[in-house]
Amino acid sequence: MAVVQDTTKRAARRRRRSPVGAAPGTLIADPNARRSELKLTLISPETFQVVDDASTGELARACEDWPVIWLDCVGLANIELIEDIGRIFNLHPLALEDVVNTGQRPKAEFFDDHVFVVLSMMDDVATSRYEQIAFFFGEDFVVTFQEREGDPFEPVRRRIEVAQSRLRTKNADYLAYALIDAVVDSYFQPVDQMWDTIDGIEEEMLRAPEQQHVRRLHELRRNVSQLKRALGPLRDAISALIRSEAACIAPETKIYLNDTLDHILRLNESVESLREMAIGLIEMHLSLSQARINEVINVLTIVSAIFIPLTFLAGIWGMNFDPDTSPWNMPELKAYFGYPAALGFMAFIALSLVVYFRWKKWL
Amino acid sequence: MAVVQDTTKRAARRRRRSPVGAAPGTLIADPNARRSELKLTLISPETFQVVDDASTGELARACEDWPVIWLDCVGLANIELIEDIGRIFNLHPLALEDVVNTGQRPKAEFFDDHVFVVLSMMDDVATSRYEQIAFFFGEDFVVTFQEREGDPFEPVRRRIEVAQSRLRTKNADYLAYALIDAVVDSYFQPVDQMWDTIDGIEEEMLRAPEQQHVRRLHELRRNVSQLKRALGPLRDAISALIRSEAACIAPETKIYLNDTLDHILRLNESVESLREMAIGLIEMHLSLSQARINEVINVLTIVSAIFIPLTFLAGIWGMNFDPDTSPWNMPELKAYFGYPAALGFMAFIALSLVVYFRWKKWL
Amino acid sequence: MAVVQDTTKRAARRRRRSPVGAAPGTLIADPNARRSELKLTLISPETFQVVDDASTGELARACEDWPVIWLDCVGLANIELIEDIGRIFNLHPLALEDVVNTGQRPKAEFFDDHVFVVLSMMDDVATSRYEQIAFFFGEDFVVTFQEREGDPFEPVRRRIEVAQSRLRTKNADYLAYALIDAVVDSYFQPVDQMWDTIDGIEEEMLRAPEQQHVRRLHELRRNVSQLKRALGPLRDAISALIRSEAACIAPETKIYLNDTLDHILRLNESVESLREMAIGLIEMHLSLSQARINEVINVLTIVSAIFIPLTFLAGIWGMNFDPDTSPWNMPELKAYFGYPAALGFMAFIALSLVVYFRWKKWL
Amino acid sequence: MAVVQDTTKRAARRRRRSPVGAAPGTLIADPNARRSELKLTLISPETFQVVDDASTGELARACEDWPVIWLDCVGLANIELIEDIGRIFNLHPLALEDVVNTGQRPKAEFFDDHVFVVLSMMDDVATSRYEQIAFFFGEDFVVTFQEREGDPFEPVRRRIEVAQSRLRTKNADYLAYALIDAVVDSYFQPVDQMWDTIDGIEEEMLRAPEQQHVRRLHELRRNVSQLKRALGPLRDAISALIRSEAACIAPETKIYLNDTLDHILRLNESVESLREMAIGLIEMHLSLSQARINEVINVLTIVSAIFIPLTFLAGIWGMNFDPDTSPWNMPELKAYFGYPAALGFMAFIALSLVVYFRWKKWL
Amino acid sequence: MAVVQDTTKRAARRRRRSPVGAAPGTLIADPNARRSELKLTLISPETFQVVDDASTGELARACEDWPVIWLDCVGLANIELIEDIGRIFNLHPLALEDVVNTGQRPKAEFFDDHVFVVLSMMDDVATSRYEQIAFFFGEDFVVTFQEREGDPFEPVRRRIEVAQSRLRTKNADYLAYALIDAVVDSYFQPVDQMWDTIDGIEEEMLRAPEQQHVRRLHELRRNVSQLKRALGPLRDAISALIRSEAACIAPETKIYLNDTLDHILRLNESVESLREMAIGLIEMHLSLSQARINEVINVLTIVSAIFIPLTFLAGIWGMNFDPDTSPWNMPELKAYFGYPAALGFMAFIALSLVVYFRWKKWL
Repeated sequence: MAVVQDTTKRAARRRRRSPVGAAPGTLIADPNARRSELKLTLISPETFQVVDDASTGELARACEDWPVIWLDCVGLANIELIEDIGRIFNLHPLALEDVVNTGQRPKAEFFDDHVFVVLSMMDDVATSRYEQIAFFFGEDFVVTFQEREGDPFEPVRRRIEVAQSRLRTKNADYLAYALIDAVVDSYFQPVDQMWDTIDGIEEEMLRAPEQQHVRRLHELRRNVSQLKRALGPLRDAISALIRSEAACIAPETKIYLNDTLDHILRLNESVESLREMAIGLIEMHLSLSQARINEVINVLTIVSAIFIPLTFLAGIWGMNFDPDTSPWNMPELKAYFGYPAALGFMAFIALSLVVYFRWKKWL
Repeated sequence: MAVVQDTTKRAARRRRRSPVGAAPGTLIADPNARRSELKLTLISPETFQVVDDASTGELARACEDWPVIWLDCVGLANIELIEDIGRIFNLHPLALEDVVNTGQRPKAEFFDDHVFVVLSMMDDVATSRYEQIAFFFGEDFVVTFQEREGDPFEPVRRRIEVAQSRLRTKNADYLAYALIDAVVDSYFQPVDQMWDTIDGIEEEMLRAPEQQHVRRLHELRRNVSQLKRALGPLRDAISALIRSEAACIAPETKIYLNDTLDHILRLNESVESLREMAIGLIEMHLSLSQARINEVINVLTIVSAIFIPLTFLAGIWGMNFDPDTSPWNMPELKAYFGYPAALGFMAFIALSLVVYFRWKKWL
Repeated sequence: MAVVQDTTKRAARRRRRSPVGAAPGTLIADPNARRSELKLTLISPETFQVVDDASTGELARACEDWPVIWLDCVGLANIELIEDIGRIFNLHPLALEDVVNTGQRPKAEFFDDHVFVVLSMMDDVATSRYEQIAFFFGEDFVVTFQEREGDPFEPVRRRIEVAQSRLRTKNADYLAYALIDAVVDSYFQPVDQMWDTIDGIEEEMLRAPEQQHVRRLHELRRNVSQLKRALGPLRDAISALIRSEAACIAPETKIYLNDTLDHILRLNESVESLREMAIGLIEMHLSLSQARINEVINVLTIVSAIFIPLTFLAGIWGMNFDPDTSPWNMPELKAYFGYPAALGFMAFIALSLVVYFRWKKWL
Repeated sequence: MAVVQDTTKRAARRRRRSPVGAAPGTLIADPNARRSELKLTLISPETFQVVDDASTGELARACEDWPVIWLDCVGLANIELIEDIGRIFNLHPLALEDVVNTGQRPKAEFFDDHVFVVLSMMDDVATSRYEQIAFFFGEDFVVTFQEREGDPFEPVRRRIEVAQSRLRTKNADYLAYALIDAVVDSYFQPVDQMWDTIDGIEEEMLRAPEQQHVRRLHELRRNVSQLKRALGPLRDAISALIRSEAACIAPETKIYLNDTLDHILRLNESVESLREMAIGLIEMHLSLSQARINEVINVLTIVSAIFIPLTFLAGIWGMNFDPDTSPWNMPELKAYFGYPAALGFMAFIALSLVVYFRWKKWL
Repeated sequence: MAVVQDTTKRAARRRRRSPVGAAPGTLIADPNARRSELKLTLISPETFQVVDDASTGELARACEDWPVIWLDCVGLANIELIEDIGRIFNLHPLALEDVVNTGQRPKAEFFDDHVFVVLSMMDDVATSRYEQIAFFFGEDFVVTFQEREGDPFEPVRRRIEVAQSRLRTKNADYLAYALIDAVVDSYFQPVDQMWDTIDGIEEEMLRAPEQQHVRRLHELRRNVSQLKRALGPLRDAISALIRSEAACIAPETKIYLNDTLDHILRLNESVESLREMAIGLIEMHLSLSQARINEVINVLTIVSAIFIPLTFLAGIWGMNFDPDTSPWNMPELKAYFGYPAALGFMAFIALSLVVYFRWKKWL
């Protein structure tokens, strides 16, 4: 998940780790990571200010002047910068390592004066690629680390712009909640897309089942179970926030987080439905194509069962026994109504078989 | 589930959410929602009174005069009205948001002086559409919000009309219990319908398995697992009410709620049976249609195995080797009993094969 | 389950409920229920007495005179009688409602001075019909309600007749235990019957798999899962009795109840084995009939593969190209050893194919 | 499981119970049980002594003289003897009933001054027959009840013979642990046998899949799930011993029991692997035999598809339209190169089809 | 797993046990085990020293001189040596027995002044062979026992060489953590290999499904479930370390162990994905080969259905009824356009069937 350019399935599945045996807490940049860029949002009840591409100097000054600071760091290549941020906000080194080594399981960890939350966000439905988003928040600051410039925070920025927004008057934990909620809500759109896909496949399949439907359903099922596995730790992380006794999370914020948890539970149910539906459709495809081949075999059998005896009869009368040699040898060939009688007999056989198959309900 | 007019499957599945990024607690009406209409039922031990299409003024006055008030708000389009109700009864804004954004998971939430319960009700068995019903209740009031004019409350209204009804003498929590119980009981009817459907399919299928049975069973299974998923949070919500220590729920009411919980457990078992039965029937259909095609293949094989060798023999004697050229060339064609002997030989072969197949138990 | 006369599957599955919206605690008789009949067993350490068809007057008097009373009420149609009993023993109205509305899940409920237990008993293995048996017991009385005259209590009655029986010297809770144990033990017989059925099917199937085996196994599987679902709440009910702190259950009785619980666990394991076995046999049937049809297809293929080329050859030499027109036209027809050579060639082809199929291990 | 002579599957499955309705605690001998025989092992730190076929008199005397006594009672037919033992060691009657009614689930029960443990032991891998072994132990005695003379205790007896054995210096609980451990270890051998069986089946099956493999795998799977069900309560029983606070189990012994528990967990994993492997092989057999029949159908199709059109052509030129009547009637029959051209045309058709099938990768 | 030379599957599956009935705590060397070799790493904050092939004398001296000692014992054949080590570090005899009897489940056990951890490590992906690695650590020592010279500890040795390494300044528990973490990290490589294998199979299979793919997937699935079963107790062991209150594990080390636990959880998810993927691919293979055979049957049916009626017609006109005998006998044979009309009729029949099959979408 670490690299923008790398979109192959295999790379998407493997998550970055520190090199085996590296001392824990050592920050080692992913060589493909995007250059870091700091976006600083300064918030006070009365006003707010956004500084794009801020320096650490500006950051340190802002820390002292503003009641709430939100630092959004996009791209994870600039290790020294990330270490500087860690020093300014006094963040735990192991947590910082998790920020850089993307592909962590979503989790919440509680330190003395700040909380560390890792979430994952579906970045690309087609390739089922996930992006890691890390949050640190204390009483008066939120720091977010994204792998790539992400959209999920845009609505929150717009809400800050509204003058009487709760985001301005409350502490940093409420801002953190708003950002986390935005990340969780970003899952609804891919889930809806998957529903569209599966509805489309179902419709097509009921019209004419094709082999590609099974492939697409398998693919979908894989993405769905990946999504399901992503939601599990997400729920655990939010639950941990709600249950935690960290001083920097206000009880009221926990009520809001409960709402977020509810969204995850709903997502989870929807994803579970998707999975059952995909499995059901795969089984139905099997059943449909089985039904189709049964119909084909039926036709084969009926055609064969009717014509093979008739062909045998034609073969009999096509034999060359010499009627001239003996009166026992195929006298019917010289009978006056021999041919019409033979045809009639064949027609009778065919008709009987048709009636028989009708009665057996095979026709 | 939000719209009456929209009955497509897809819409029924997707649940309404606040626009991503909207501030929590903001009420935004679903543009398709039904105009709200207030139905006020005023209850005292001695008498009762029903006000259709009440105004908020009447409501505020009633609050002061009557021991127990039940306000039934049908339709969720009138946001200001709903906000006014929230103000009069002092309801929590997040809960009110859940009322308007239908499609919530059933849940119970406890606030200082009132309890908030969301339930879902199966609205239409055919399309498997669910309607959300929200309850607020405190010591002396019950407020219910329905998406559409619903029948589930009718029996409760009739019970209030009975003079010595417990509904008149007890507090609002007992009325809330009665309403919740009515919603839960409304599930029994669709479950019974599903049993009828599955019994019908089973009967038809045992007579003659058809492909449409599988489709209907799949459909049913889908509805059943949706129902099962609906019952899960329902049970949790009722359990939460029973375990809660909210002051406004009397211990005696909890005994009654236990009964409601029991109904949900029974429903759950019935639904579980339905699901197993549906899966069992799908497997049985597979088995039946497999048995049928096996029978067909059997017939094909027997017909082929008997007539193909005979046809070959007829072909032999239909060859044009010239008996006149050499005594080795097909002398049988000129034999006195050549033809009857040939026919006899064929009959013997056929008979032997029939006996063989009988012995093999294929015939 | 409510009606003796009604033995259809559908009726057996649906359980009786109060009419939707009826006030809880209202007793409404099932119109098909059997007339109630009271059977009073009066027990003291020294003696015992049985009063068939007792009146409530006799009952009230007995309550004062005898240390332990067992009232067995068979049939649930006489609502007033049941209400009278409720008054005499001071039973909870909601529990009495559960007695009349048969089809409750097995459960144990604890009231101030008595315990209420509902159990279910398999009444008819063939139709998988269950009967509800309700128990009330306090310190000095046991009241049992059966839908129909039942056998399960007979052994207990016989044990009371034995002079030095523990049933006479102990309190009512021991009697209740003995009755409950008898109900649980009544499950062993149908489970053994099911084992006999499945063993029979297995034997028959291994001799010659038929379609009806699958149907019977499906049927059995359905009954087994119903039984399994019946045992679950049964276990919960007994566990609740063991864990309960009700004053009227002596610690020693709990040791005995533990034994009953053990029986249920053993039943459960046996039923679980039955279920696995049924599923295994269904799979094996599939495998056997698959093997059989594969054999059939094999025969079809071999016959076809051998005779179709031969028939083609016969067809060749049956063509009417005129040997007289040109020396190129079928000169073999006039060859001296043409016919024997042709037959020999065909025999060679046939033999080669047989050898080939042998080598392929298809023959 | 009660009878040595009875080895039928059905009998092995059903477990003995007291007659329905018998008073609990009544000992009723299984009529087929083996005569009881007492084997008394007397242990002191300095020496030990074994008394075969001891009488109750010897037993009572030994109880007073020796620090640790191990009484091994083989065979359960002698009810009075068992009751005498119960009196001497003051054993609980319900526990004694469980000893005689073999086929109990493994369990541990704790009485005031002794512990009662029931274990089961696989007695015969072929018939999957289990034997029940019951243990009573207090501070200074161990009593074991076996259905038949069993080997599992032999290694323990040999260890007692070693002069400095811990078995001589420690209390009875350590001896009990050693005996229990021996019973648990006796499961390893049948599990290894099952692995040998499944490995053998796998090898054979990969060479040539036969129908009997499926049967044997089904059989094995049944035995494995029986074994799995036997291990579950075994684990619970040992866990109960470890967690128990019975005075007669020393903390140090619990460390040893933890080791035994570990063995059960390992057995459980091995059995779980066996089960997965059996299921996997059954699926693989299906896949292999499906592949084989697909190959057969392929051959049938290719032979048919090639020769059926050719035979049709031969049939055309075998028609008897009279070339003499009209120049339009089969002039090719009289063409100079008619026959070779016809054969060439057929060869071309056949070749084309072969090429086509090659291209389709069917050949 | 005990033997280097023995690489058969069967041996790999069976784990070594003490002989049945051996007294617990007796060390009995596996006759195939590798000779033990001691590798002593002595660590102080300022410097470090490595002694290859150390003697117990050197070991005892080092214990007194160095703050942290890491003794790595490779090979388990030298029982006396292992017993000496046990005496020097005062290790528990039961734990030492587990060291020698390899094939233990991963677990953590806590003794008065040291902790005992058994882990397993995948030794060979191809044969799915596991090696046991045992750790003892107290405040100032770590003792590791490997079956074979292993690579997993190399990175840790290199980190010790770095002068300012935390491994030098912290206590033995941090070193133990580093070693355990290295063992856990060694699982990532085989998991990645399995992903490569499954990706390869998927690609090949989508190009052309072959029977060997199923075999390889079955093999992989078996290895994956073995891996899954190995990870379960691994997680439990690490969790036990984190939850333990052993004095020799610093709280800070537990934070690091949490990180290790996180790695195991990630591995577990990856392995779970692998398993689902393998099962999905097996199902897809079934579906693909089913689709292929359906196509084959389709072709068979169409060819048969078209040519069998035509061949019958050719057979009709190949009959030898004598046109000279009667005007009713096959007059068409002498018709002027008889032959072209017959061919035209056949072509018409064939065309009609083709159109019909097109319409049915079978062609």
